[in-house]
Amino acid sequence: MIYLDNAATTLTKPLCVKQAVFDAMDRLGNSSRGMHGPALEAARDIYGAREKAAAFFGVQGADRIVFTSNATEALNIAIEGAVKPGMHVITTEAEHNSVLRPLYRKAQKGVKLTIAKADKKGRISLEDIEKAVNPDTAWVFCTHASNVTGNLLPLAQIGSMCREKGIHLAADISQTGGCIPINMEKMGIELLCFTGHKGLLGPQGTGGLCVSPNLTLPPFKVGGSGIRSFEKMHPSVMPEALEAGTANGHGIAGLSAAFDFLKETKVENIQKHESRLMGIFYEQVKKISGVTVYGDFETKDRAAVVSLNIRDYDSKEMGDVLWQEYGIAVRAGIHCAPLIHRALGTEQQGTVRFSFSWFNTEEEALQAAWAVKKLAF
Amino acid sequence: MIYLDNAATTLTKPLCVKQAVFDAMDRLGNSSRGMHGPALEAARDIYGAREKAAAFFGVQGADRIVFTSNATEALNIAIEGAVKPGMHVITTEAEHNSVLRPLYRKAQKGVKLTIAKADKKGRISLEDIEKAVNPDTAWVFCTHASNVTGNLLPLAQIGSMCREKGIHLAADISQTGGCIPINMEKMGIELLCFTGHKGLLGPQGTGGLCVSPNLTLPPFKVGGSGIRSFEKMHPSVMPEALEAGTANGHGIAGLSAAFDFLKETKVENIQKHESRLMGIFYEQVKKISGVTVYGDFETKDRAAVVSLNIRDYDSKEMGDVLWQEYGIAVRAGIHCAPLIHRALGTEQQGTVRFSFSWFNTEEEALQAAWAVKKLAF
Repeated sequence: MIYLDNAATTLTKPLCVKQAVFDAMDRLGNSSRGMHGPALEAARDIYGAREKAAAFFGVQGADRIVFTSNATEALNIAIEGAVKPGMHVITTEAEHNSVLRPLYRKAQKGVKLTIAKADKKGRISLEDIEKAVNPDTAWVFCTHASNVTGNLLPLAQIGSMCREKGIHLAADISQTGGCIPINMEKMGIELLCFTGHKGLLGPQGTGGLCVSPNLTLPPFKVGGSGIRSFEKMHPSVMPEALEAGTANGHGIAGLSAAFDFLKETKVENIQKHESRLMGIFYEQVKKISGVTVYGDFETKDRAAVVSLNIRDYDSKEMGDVLWQEYGIAVRAGIHCAPLIHRALGTEQQGTVRFSFSWFNTEEEALQAAWAVKKLAF
Repeated sequence: MIYLDNAATTLTKPLCVKQAVFDAMDRLGNSSRGMHGPALEAARDIYGAREKAAAFFGVQGADRIVFTSNATEALNIAIEGAVKPGMHVITTEAEHNSVLRPLYRKAQKGVKLTIAKADKKGRISLEDIEKAVNPDTAWVFCTHASNVTGNLLPLAQIGSMCREKGIHLAADISQTGGCIPINMEKMGIELLCFTGHKGLLGPQGTGGLCVSPNLTLPPFKVGGSGIRSFEKMHPSVMPEALEAGTANGHGIAGLSAAFDFLKETKVENIQKHESRLMGIFYEQVKKISGVTVYGDFETKDRAAVVSLNIRDYDSKEMGDVLWQEYGIAVRAGIHCAPLIHRALGTEQQGTVRFSFSWFNTEEEALQAAWAVKKLAF
């Protein structure tokens, strides 16, 4: 099998991640729920994972890292907590439904929403976002990279613009965390939503929200917190304020090991490797007659994703053939990001998406391109 | 080490659970997010786990099983979704903050709340719940067993009473799932909230909500659903309606293996074993001078939990000594269930809680009782 659906989830995890989860299931009690060895070990391990996440994403303070079950939960906590009726919020056509749907829900409750348009290559411009700003604008919510095209959004520039205008910036880095260096503070991001099971190479069931030190969010879920049990309200101290119930110690142990792996491997090396494979694949497929590649390949700064179609060949059918006849795993159809499909004109056809990870090889990229060539004849 | 903090989380997991998680990290793609082998394998595995959960809890239909990251999340989905302003809700003093705090939040938004009192032994009576019913009463939310005393609530009788009066019943079975047989339909429960990492012997980061077929809940988190990507609203079809983003396939694989283990081992055998160990421990400690045991031990039907104190010895200090000098892991202090502590008169002292699992032995129960005896002198 050639697995090229890494933008959905990375299938190959570092051995240390798998071992860490296995070992944790023998080792960890309930964190913050006791003072004996296994409970303290859980608390220490989870705190250690917060420290690693904070260092990895350039966040001031381990207590600003909230663990969630995936990026969608982080985005729900962020949007439910930060966006209030009367506010104007800017988002983009590059967004996944995990950003759009929580914002649509807010729009039903009196939040004004502007969605910055993508051009035919799926690009979102800083200018369009800036033009949408009005005196009520409180937040910009945007992805770091489109999960359909792989185009990066100019996040650092958006961050500068937001800082200048006194607007808050929240970023969904589901597609770039672990693949492209990210520094929350330097990039002017105040809420950073990440998932553990994609580029970070951690287990499913993990993710998180990094909250800037000058921001306070109300709890989303409430319940047991292990502290202040006699208070009727969920505690407001971080990170407990945004977590409730027993933490996923086992999953977080795996994520923690993944941060170690990334630190040692270096995100810059991962970016270089993935970018190289994407380039090899792209250079091959772009010259195949009948193939349309979507997105902006004029710049090298992009996520390692190539979405394409062959003439009017149904993308899902092509995905099936790639799997069944070539053993190549890709994602085909609509990628939970409806607006970018409209911008690209692929809302009917969908696209066939090839996405690369650290564990893919040049040979795999070439074989995938060869399969596309065969299918295009 | 003698681990007797199983009411917080079971430390020893069956080998098959650990192996299932490890293997899943090599095997599973993103469920419902692709049509290739690993994605389909994830979808099939998760569906299989839903089927097992449905059979285990007596629920009609695998699609009525919603996976969550813990019981607290399940309770938040249930309470946020089912309880509406103007409704009257009955709960009990035996509840954990995971039930109380979401209900308090609702009370701030126009929900009327009655909390049925516990007696000095921490017992909640059917009569008190029934007496609290008024024409606006829509829901009873209650735990199956107190996490502090181990007392069972008369869930089946409460269920009958609710059915008779046309009231809905939601149960928190965090303390009993996997330890005491539960049949949602037979017991008249319409929302069943469970955690995976305690008596079910699954990994942390797993849990769920079983929703009766005649009940519809609105989404709590919204986002990517893998289906109906062009709709602005999160889909209302179950179970997608109450799940959002990438499922915790790795954790659910472990939970699925745990259901197999429980089926083979049989909950009745687990109940018998845990009950026996609790009985051995209780018979020893109750005769020690200076020891107060909390809860109702007149009935055999109870969770395998013994909470106690020695005179006015600070419970947290006693917990520390048990760990440091005897290598016995217990939970001490306030157990995130403030109202039952008030009923028992232990809101200052807390209690020292010994809780047993399938993997504990008679020898461990005797050694723990011996340690209490030593400390009481």
